[in-house]
Amino acid sequence: MTAEASITESVQPVPTARIDLRSDTVTLPTPEMRQAMAEAVVGDDVYGEDPTVNTLQQTVAELLGKEAALFMPSGSMTNQAAIAMHTSRGQEVICAEGSHIYEWELGMMAAFSGVVPRFVPAPLGVPDPQQVRRAVRHSIHQSPTGLISLENTHNKMGGTVIPLDVMQAVRAVADEEGLPLHLDGARMANAAAALGVSLKAVAAPFHSVSLCLSKGLGAPVGSVLAGSKADLVRAHRYRKMLGGGMRQAGILAAAGLIALRDGPARLSADHARARQLAEALVEAGYAVNLDAVQTNIIYATIPDAQQKVEQWAEQGVLASALDVDSVRFVLHYQIDDQMLARATQVLTA
Amino acid sequence: MTAEASITESVQPVPTARIDLRSDTVTLPTPEMRQAMAEAVVGDDVYGEDPTVNTLQQTVAELLGKEAALFMPSGSMTNQAAIAMHTSRGQEVICAEGSHIYEWELGMMAAFSGVVPRFVPAPLGVPDPQQVRRAVRHSIHQSPTGLISLENTHNKMGGTVIPLDVMQAVRAVADEEGLPLHLDGARMANAAAALGVSLKAVAAPFHSVSLCLSKGLGAPVGSVLAGSKADLVRAHRYRKMLGGGMRQAGILAAAGLIALRDGPARLSADHARARQLAEALVEAGYAVNLDAVQTNIIYATIPDAQQKVEQWAEQGVLASALDVDSVRFVLHYQIDDQMLARATQVLTA
Amino acid sequence: MTAEASITESVQPVPTARIDLRSDTVTLPTPEMRQAMAEAVVGDDVYGEDPTVNTLQQTVAELLGKEAALFMPSGSMTNQAAIAMHTSRGQEVICAEGSHIYEWELGMMAAFSGVVPRFVPAPLGVPDPQQVRRAVRHSIHQSPTGLISLENTHNKMGGTVIPLDVMQAVRAVADEEGLPLHLDGARMANAAAALGVSLKAVAAPFHSVSLCLSKGLGAPVGSVLAGSKADLVRAHRYRKMLGGGMRQAGILAAAGLIALRDGPARLSADHARARQLAEALVEAGYAVNLDAVQTNIIYATIPDAQQKVEQWAEQGVLASALDVDSVRFVLHYQIDDQMLARATQVLTA
Amino acid sequence: MTAEASITESVQPVPTARIDLRSDTVTLPTPEMRQAMAEAVVGDDVYGEDPTVNTLQQTVAELLGKEAALFMPSGSMTNQAAIAMHTSRGQEVICAEGSHIYEWELGMMAAFSGVVPRFVPAPLGVPDPQQVRRAVRHSIHQSPTGLISLENTHNKMGGTVIPLDVMQAVRAVADEEGLPLHLDGARMANAAAALGVSLKAVAAPFHSVSLCLSKGLGAPVGSVLAGSKADLVRAHRYRKMLGGGMRQAGILAAAGLIALRDGPARLSADHARARQLAEALVEAGYAVNLDAVQTNIIYATIPDAQQKVEQWAEQGVLASALDVDSVRFVLHYQIDDQMLARATQVLTA
Repeated sequence: MTAEASITESVQPVPTARIDLRSDTVTLPTPEMRQAMAEAVVGDDVYGEDPTVNTLQQTVAELLGKEAALFMPSGSMTNQAAIAMHTSRGQEVICAEGSHIYEWELGMMAAFSGVVPRFVPAPLGVPDPQQVRRAVRHSIHQSPTGLISLENTHNKMGGTVIPLDVMQAVRAVADEEGLPLHLDGARMANAAAALGVSLKAVAAPFHSVSLCLSKGLGAPVGSVLAGSKADLVRAHRYRKMLGGGMRQAGILAAAGLIALRDGPARLSADHARARQLAEALVEAGYAVNLDAVQTNIIYATIPDAQQKVEQWAEQGVLASALDVDSVRFVLHYQIDDQMLARATQVLTA
Repeated sequence: MTAEASITESVQPVPTARIDLRSDTVTLPTPEMRQAMAEAVVGDDVYGEDPTVNTLQQTVAELLGKEAALFMPSGSMTNQAAIAMHTSRGQEVICAEGSHIYEWELGMMAAFSGVVPRFVPAPLGVPDPQQVRRAVRHSIHQSPTGLISLENTHNKMGGTVIPLDVMQAVRAVADEEGLPLHLDGARMANAAAALGVSLKAVAAPFHSVSLCLSKGLGAPVGSVLAGSKADLVRAHRYRKMLGGGMRQAGILAAAGLIALRDGPARLSADHARARQLAEALVEAGYAVNLDAVQTNIIYATIPDAQQKVEQWAEQGVLASALDVDSVRFVLHYQIDDQMLARATQVLTA
Repeated sequence: MTAEASITESVQPVPTARIDLRSDTVTLPTPEMRQAMAEAVVGDDVYGEDPTVNTLQQTVAELLGKEAALFMPSGSMTNQAAIAMHTSRGQEVICAEGSHIYEWELGMMAAFSGVVPRFVPAPLGVPDPQQVRRAVRHSIHQSPTGLISLENTHNKMGGTVIPLDVMQAVRAVADEEGLPLHLDGARMANAAAALGVSLKAVAAPFHSVSLCLSKGLGAPVGSVLAGSKADLVRAHRYRKMLGGGMRQAGILAAAGLIALRDGPARLSADHARARQLAEALVEAGYAVNLDAVQTNIIYATIPDAQQKVEQWAEQGVLASALDVDSVRFVLHYQIDDQMLARATQVLTA
Repeated sequence: MTAEASITESVQPVPTARIDLRSDTVTLPTPEMRQAMAEAVVGDDVYGEDPTVNTLQQTVAELLGKEAALFMPSGSMTNQAAIAMHTSRGQEVICAEGSHIYEWELGMMAAFSGVVPRFVPAPLGVPDPQQVRRAVRHSIHQSPTGLISLENTHNKMGGTVIPLDVMQAVRAVADEEGLPLHLDGARMANAAAALGVSLKAVAAPFHSVSLCLSKGLGAPVGSVLAGSKADLVRAHRYRKMLGGGMRQAGILAAAGLIALRDGPARLSADHARARQLAEALVEAGYAVNLDAVQTNIIYATIPDAQQKVEQWAEQGVLASALDVDSVRFVLHYQIDDQMLARATQVLTA
């Protein structure tokens, strides 16, 4: 039996018993991705010889309008390699409050790069470029700024979108101050969809961009860091240091290419469903800031969040309790209208 | 080139023309592995919900006789997570000269864990337990020892094997000094095959063990760290810090399970072929320390190594020039007798 | 001529031309301190053999009610050694916004200890213990809390004082969460004076305390870290790593002993003068939050701060412009009533 | 014991009974140094306003022929600041086996700078420039070289001297490879005396030089880092990060200036006495490599070293047992001929 034959016969259907709204990272590979992984032409990527990885990297570089790109096992790694490549020990990284690089990457900016965050307020995840400018430090008595990092869409603020002109204004600040500008673009495809622009347009203001294949785009594993060739030479060394040098990684890249090809076009539907669910939650009496529901993420204020989430789980609907009274719901392409209807029924009962 | 176009263009047949002796990392997934990856039941491993990853981790823990195991994208990551989990900043890691954790992991023991190596001499990769004991530091004027690490087989010394009694004697030193003992067991299956013992016997003297699935065992990507449950809780956090938290990693684990099942039994054949090639090289007039050819690796002293390696490459036989006069050849299960015969012909011409 | 004789004859008078309100670190050693330094019995403190250093350390330990104390060249070093001794890489340090350990210690918590700050709001430098509790992290998906650190008085908020009951309540949180609690007590003697309690009372809620001799207390150089013997064994190693092992450091400790003996009693006068100056600044039309003027520091909102500070400097009165519209004035025991009167004249002209 | 009581109790006469050969760091300040410290004109060096520190820094810069110099509390700090200023995380520092920056600075090169040592063999502390060249790494698969560091005289090899031509040849290698070259010159004045050249001649081949005032030169506390202005801007930040920013540090610098003025001329006498003692030890039957006795340090092979050292201590002669059968003796200017005679008597009895 060839790999190809086996796929159609034996691949299990995506489990439908539960409707998983915890994150867009939970999507399972499609039959087409599985077939691509089974057939991928691979090589040893530590030697730079995996053709599928190379194709993925070229593809991302072109899509984002950058000179080069580098495949890694996670978005945490692409972000942390970028921080390392832009900074030196003892510097500050200016970022919005609640940024993923600080909240969910476990102090790695300190442990690996030896840098600290310098927060700027960011209502709905959008910083004021003038506050970014004021946060820049050059005094010899203080930790000098090494990097400015934005997150678009901003996960913790609710998948909110930074408009193009704000990103461009922050780039102007970066240029005036002689600083590099990084985008944690784990969900930049959601931002592009919400803004109605290309990935390239979102990436344009940045020296480096981190893009996740395994969130809304639906690939099983992997993220890509894009930037200048000179920067990526350093990132390549940091990837190896971090243990991100994988051998026949083309297996994963094959699925990533399909995610890149098919994923972006589906995101608007996720966004529409998120809005639909958010409105239903409001109707059911839960507090949701609808202004923040701009893409595929909803944060609702729900008392006894943990208990509620457990009750829903028993009925097959999964969500994330992120604080004592805060629940996150994330839409993704494996939640169709029928599943959404059923989830809404359970959540608003 | 659009993303879509690139996908169809990149699927090409596996190159058969060349005989790749650069490393045992270059093996390509077998049809059975590809099928397993295509069919793998997966979940989000960051939530601990990937059943295939969980199966792989349990399987390795049992094979190595440890409480638990953790899957990571590379052997560098399992080693560096182990170093972090055993040490605190400013300590020393006792290891043999030429250890992979120092030579090929790019200073990560310093950059991440803040520790320095303390070398003991190790002829053929085998340290003297008494020299290990003398290398232990407890003085307040010196960097205290935090960890002892062995490598079996020892890559840079030629895939050489540390005997069981030496490993046990080093464990006795570790116990007396109150120190943890780690095994960089990237090729421990080769050591087990050469010693004629089980993986569990090789792993027994160690508090933690790093085992690679993507070297002689033949999986495309991945390594596993095994140890006590308490230690692995810390390793889990370090894996996340390092960016090793992968989502539907069961794709890779599925191939790893096959590598674990079928790989070990094939290694003795690799070892026999390595000896055969080594003897042929000696006959052809190259200097090879045959005492060091104990498993699947051969180091030969060859003048103008780089030039020679390039000439051979033109004839389809690949090897690694590691210094001006040193060439490494590595046997693996995708080199059969026919390919070996042809390689020998080219290399000894 | 003996050292003693020379002192009274040749020591230059403290320069009176300028009135330096930039910081309480600018105080010059008194004749008595100079004599003590000239006569100090010293030894090699790296061997633990400097009797004057040992006396200073015992004295501080007793004054603060701790088991042991360790002398270092600066308050930045005592703080950073404390952070290192309490944490492991990748953890979070809970502290108030604007804390010295973050604002003025140049990212060292990240570069050396590999930890990041987790800020809690602190109006007038006083955090709410319940917000401290909510800032504690134990999830495996987040950076775990390693330390809680308070600063009393709080420099950047204006030398403000944390009341005893708040410190005790934060200690209760620390105990419930199993966390160590550190005091950046660079100016804890000012806090003790303002609260009308002993140094020991201020130090009581903390596992470790950093006390500066060279700020309001008036010694030329040095800070002391006090805590448990077990903790200080680790701090001793970190001091050596940081390059804080000094040889005949008793020279400095001799002056420190005088600062400890005479300094605390003088602080209330500094506080009274600070209030006097603050009220004069308000009368002159500058915005000063008088509620924040609790000890020897004043922050005034003054447009074109840098320019104003330069004008005053030309008239012999020095202050620090800390932002475009913020000026800091610090009182200390080398500013007497006459100098204050003249400074007030210049500043309110 | 109150603070006040402790002060008067602690002033005791300098112990004269013992002859301390453990290190040249044990010298006590002379009356002239004490006077200078008592009279020093000082200011706040964190603001760059301490005139005595500034004078010391200018003096050292001129003596060593460098653009600038920076005063710090210890030689460990000047070395570690230099390593930080020359390297980036994950690089290698080429140094001789047994270098102080590795053996006695407690893993700080790793903990702070994130770099690992790459050792070259150095018989009598003198590396072969060709082996230095071979130790340089540029491959992307390995940790790249960031710095070459020499130690002259080399403490652990016995105060041995690197000849001028070797230092110049290593500089040539550094230039060809585009690498910075640092001198751990803690005892470079001993090297200059032994070579019969100026400090400037010893410093000439190096981009940066660390010079200790508190070893053979006899100051109580302090070291100086000299180099280019651009490099020292970075070192200044690292000094602050390390906690080496001292306030009225001119107290210490005043003694340092005397050490610099008077110390170098006395070193040849120390060297002559060391040779005299070494020969006496050989005559008494102890193994001493006389070729290694080039300056003020003697290593003797003495069975039961620890026990022997304790016996001698009871008779008032102190030495350092550095291993089970190795004892170090260090001459310095507070050991005169009479004391040497008595020490010789005790040691050879």
